[in-house]
Amino acid sequence: MLSHGGGGEEMNSLINDLIFKIFDNEILSQSNDSALLNLSGKLAFSTDSFVVTPIFFNGGDIGKIAACGTINDLAMVGARAKYLSCALIIEEGFEIDKLERVLTSIANICKICGVKVVCGDTKVVPKGKCDGIFINTSGIGELIDEPVGLNGLKHGAKILLSGDIGRHGAVVLANREELSLGGDLKSDCKSLKEIVEELFNAGIKPLSMRDATRGGLSAVLNEWAKFSKFDILIKDEFIKVSDEVAGVCELFGFEPYELANEGTFVLAVDAKDEEKALKVLRKFDANANSVGEILKDQNSRVILQNIYGSKRLLEAPKGELLPRIC
Amino acid sequence: MLSHGGGGEEMNSLINDLIFKIFDNEILSQSNDSALLNLSGKLAFSTDSFVVTPIFFNGGDIGKIAACGTINDLAMVGARAKYLSCALIIEEGFEIDKLERVLTSIANICKICGVKVVCGDTKVVPKGKCDGIFINTSGIGELIDEPVGLNGLKHGAKILLSGDIGRHGAVVLANREELSLGGDLKSDCKSLKEIVEELFNAGIKPLSMRDATRGGLSAVLNEWAKFSKFDILIKDEFIKVSDEVAGVCELFGFEPYELANEGTFVLAVDAKDEEKALKVLRKFDANANSVGEILKDQNSRVILQNIYGSKRLLEAPKGELLPRIC
Repeated sequence: MLSHGGGGEEMNSLINDLIFKIFDNEILSQSNDSALLNLSGKLAFSTDSFVVTPIFFNGGDIGKIAACGTINDLAMVGARAKYLSCALIIEEGFEIDKLERVLTSIANICKICGVKVVCGDTKVVPKGKCDGIFINTSGIGELIDEPVGLNGLKHGAKILLSGDIGRHGAVVLANREELSLGGDLKSDCKSLKEIVEELFNAGIKPLSMRDATRGGLSAVLNEWAKFSKFDILIKDEFIKVSDEVAGVCELFGFEPYELANEGTFVLAVDAKDEEKALKVLRKFDANANSVGEILKDQNSRVILQNIYGSKRLLEAPKGELLPRIC
Repeated sequence: MLSHGGGGEEMNSLINDLIFKIFDNEILSQSNDSALLNLSGKLAFSTDSFVVTPIFFNGGDIGKIAACGTINDLAMVGARAKYLSCALIIEEGFEIDKLERVLTSIANICKICGVKVVCGDTKVVPKGKCDGIFINTSGIGELIDEPVGLNGLKHGAKILLSGDIGRHGAVVLANREELSLGGDLKSDCKSLKEIVEELFNAGIKPLSMRDATRGGLSAVLNEWAKFSKFDILIKDEFIKVSDEVAGVCELFGFEPYELANEGTFVLAVDAKDEEKALKVLRKFDANANSVGEILKDQNSRVILQNIYGSKRLLEAPKGELLPRIC
């Protein structure tokens, strides 16, 4: 009801009886306007709002994606997520049991990752003024070592992928169209905190990392090429795409390279670290692979080479991509 | 357009050509997945989503309120805001010039307050799936001294108000109903960062502080009474309410005590600090006043005494308060 966001007794009871219980921790329960934290040194700070539809999909829901999304944004700069905020915009009439499921998904990911939800906000808007639930999470993390950005991209670096691509986008599309795909197709939605920590523990210094969310692999590689000015060569045959994702792409005319992922990332490493990094990635996903490298030429192009050696440019995605995948 | 949130070229150009220019700073322009910050010691962390309607109102807009709201949440625990995130959920068809106005309002408040917007996110949802624009800001601040919470509330403490009450709620209501009120009625929306710093600089240790947003003065006092268990006595005659706010309340059947404020706060101080605190508050607003005190009895009641000495309970707000005032 609207009154659950109005600042009165109904809102207090929603917060105290549901939200605080699900996210239970000693910082949150101080119930101040702000959470009080003890942190020091180099920190990373990130935010994301989530509007994915459908709210529940095969392999996750908007809560899981909201927790993983921000934890992963922190991981990609080389930071260990510590604290999350959670701000809800809820449509009047949204069922309490769905809210509970979504919040429990956030809490479950936080438990796995050793992250705490320490502050939040709840707004309720009239029916028809949002779409079920929108969630914002912002996160604070501590840097594991040196920060990882875009400046590390250099000629000779190897490009690795942490798994097969396109699963999240394909699942959202299939769920929206109520396609039955034998149930084998699951979103890749997951936290990347552990895998990134293992990379650092193995002594690898990532040159750059990026989770391939909106715009998929193509968006990441084109951003890297544009920023670094180097050409990037990618070999088609090394990029894993499941049969189900390939099927959805054929049916709807999408490219797997442009489909969103929510737990698959692109990693650039020094050539000498390639084997070691691949070993770490494969501990988490057998589909991880080395897929290309950064060339010497400086034309900011992404070049896709097929198994026969012929090449084409992989353009940056544009126009109406699949909307609301996260 | 939907493509402005899709992760492709249109989104990159919106971010680079508009958003980065308005919020221009060296941390934001590193364009990583997360902002890299150097902070140490005791920090405060807060989040708020803003869904106010109308988006533009007399005395502010959703951007101003989004910046002030989070800066103020940090101020209320005794923290100096340093960094903000800014996450936008935009309805397809929302005009770029309105977006620019709203973002400029955020940037203006940040400039005044010495705060930087260091990370952000942009989502676009189809027409009819949100209402113009929703904004989330999360903020990180450094504690000025000891944190201010609810534990400081004690018998004998004086209750001060930083200004007259109800202006923000009344303006939103009047703007929604297209009431003409001679233009004198303006939202109190403003940053409380400076005033809180001045209180600390004057040697005052606030026992508790809370900006009287959703649920207004009544929500704050009832929360304090409930948490501390003490009764709180408030004197009607010392609480300033403008004629315009009183008029709107009469017309629509609202209580000024329950109307939202966005730059007016309640302060509890030791009796010995009362005069000094009032002097600081009045430097910023001549309507600041000492309005009551915390009693010895422990019944968690808020007692409102009128000019003739008769008393009634000020109940916690409940039910359908004015929705979407922030």
